Amino acid sequence: MAVDLNVGELVAGARRGEARAVARLISLVEDESPSLRDVSAALAPHTGRAHIVGLTGPPGVGKSTSTSALVTALRAKERRVGVLAVDPTSPFSGGALLGDRVRMQEHATDDDVYIRSMATRGHLGGLAGAAPQALRVLDAAGCDVILVETVGVGQSEVEIAGLADTTLVLVAPGTGDGIQAAKAGILEIGDIFVINKSDREGANTTRRELRNIVAMRESDWKAPIVLTVATTGEGVAEVVTEIERHREYLAGGELDQRRLARVRREIEAMALASLHRRMGDVTGDARLGTLAADVLAGRSDPFAAADLLVEHL
Amino acid sequence: MAVDLNVGELVAGARRGEARAVARLISLVEDESPSLRDVSAALAPHTGRAHIVGLTGPPGVGKSTSTSALVTALRAKERRVGVLAVDPTSPFSGGALLGDRVRMQEHATDDDVYIRSMATRGHLGGLAGAAPQALRVLDAAGCDVILVETVGVGQSEVEIAGLADTTLVLVAPGTGDGIQAAKAGILEIGDIFVINKSDREGANTTRRELRNIVAMRESDWKAPIVLTVATTGEGVAEVVTEIERHREYLAGGELDQRRLARVRREIEAMALASLHRRMGDVTGDARLGTLAADVLAGRSDPFAAADLLVEHL
Repeated sequence: MAVDLNVGELVAGARRGEARAVARLISLVEDESPSLRDVSAALAPHTGRAHIVGLTGPPGVGKSTSTSALVTALRAKERRVGVLAVDPTSPFSGGALLGDRVRMQEHATDDDVYIRSMATRGHLGGLAGAAPQALRVLDAAGCDVILVETVGVGQSEVEIAGLADTTLVLVAPGTGDGIQAAKAGILEIGDIFVINKSDREGANTTRRELRNIVAMRESDWKAPIVLTVATTGEGVAEVVTEIERHREYLAGGELDQRRLARVRREIEAMALASLHRRMGDVTGDARLGTLAADVLAGRSDPFAAADLLVEHL
Repeated sequence: MAVDLNVGELVAGARRGEARAVARLISLVEDESPSLRDVSAALAPHTGRAHIVGLTGPPGVGKSTSTSALVTALRAKERRVGVLAVDPTSPFSGGALLGDRVRMQEHATDDDVYIRSMATRGHLGGLAGAAPQALRVLDAAGCDVILVETVGVGQSEVEIAGLADTTLVLVAPGTGDGIQAAKAGILEIGDIFVINKSDREGANTTRRELRNIVAMRESDWKAPIVLTVATTGEGVAEVVTEIERHREYLAGGELDQRRLARVRREIEAMALASLHRRMGDVTGDARLGTLAADVLAGRSDPFAAADLLVEHL
């Protein structure tokens, strides 16, 4: 096993497309292994090529099925594909609630598809802290496109957009999803809208709603709206075309801006996590205990205590 | 208006029970006013008396109705009551999605009830950063009991427990809520379980499920399970009795432990928010930009960049 942990060899193996090396590296990331820093340093020169595509949308809209259909469509164009299903579980809950990943199994034997689910529970820095490292592994492994999907609900649906070059927002027709999505703010982050289950009633109404929202935006990129039926694959090739069109648009300058903003957030999250750890180490912990006792007794207030804590870091 | 902003006078007014002063102070907290530090310092000596009770549970369980019924029951015992309805909206969404607060209006004219909703969107430190300050205002204003309730769903449901001395977990009968709640981890945080809408079928099954869960816990406090119909007030007096019994239990030593842990988290959150702000100031921002560019070009990796950022704070 010691040989396995040679980070340089693992990265070389991942670059040659060895599935085991890729899996191993992502595990090191997920487990916050002590060698994570070495992994990150070794990957750095080999990243930046993959196009990262986020999938977001309300529960039940067919994200998992759409992801699988996209893999099929991308493979038809001979793209090497990575899939990262991120599971932002509660800090208390035990295992990953991964749901139905059955559809993914049809790709399990394809050497040019890497599928990985990842729990971010308990990671310092959460989704923003852990997922980018896993994306770097898949990037270095030569994926042309990486699909990132969240399992479950909540704010991380929006967070996922912060990881992606291109964000697909999925909605279902006629279920008021449009309005719900607007409330949750996810419409603001969509580069491409996908109305899945578009064989159901209400698809045209939903398209009209979305068109109105897109029309109000001030952006050079006019977000397209694609109708799909992911279970049959209908419309999915068009989604791939739009993804590639968006990539070309981004290449005009916005890609670097987006990625720079992303890396900034990532560095910030890591720096904060590192400072947080220091507050919890032996010295920091004793100091924090004293400060908290002062606040509880009314001798100090949280702002003053926080200042003192920062001062001593 | 300048007179209004005299923090010392506002705190004195709040302590005399003046509703306007209380409202004004909470607004200062909510808006992250520059005078927030002065507010916090002025409140510090006058806090620690109120019993903070958190209400949590899945959407549709009747949290708002239960909160209102609890206010009625507490007023019948001549307790002064504060209600803080916290709205943890998405970072993108606009206004507060406050839902139906109609039931609260029956208490609106009662001088011994303070009702306040509060949006925590965009607050550095989120719920953990903003809500405790508002609770201190209500505490200093002489509330005997403060009920804290979240509006909406998600992880903040669990976070709310971190703010409370006593946490009520509400479930509805026979809807599989028990299992859902277990998944979300909220059963682990309940000091008192309330099966609301207990006139519906399945209340006894749900009680049995909860009893099994409670029985597995290793704790001196045996969490009681109370059946209520909040719309009629049935069982609500018993909930108040259990809240008071839990407070007595806590007084045996656990109260100080819980509050100390809470203040620790609060100080940590504030210190991290302050460090985060520094990263975003003029100097920090330029440095972060350079570091991000290095990572993007493959000259550095996020861990190394985060180290350099922390070093220069």
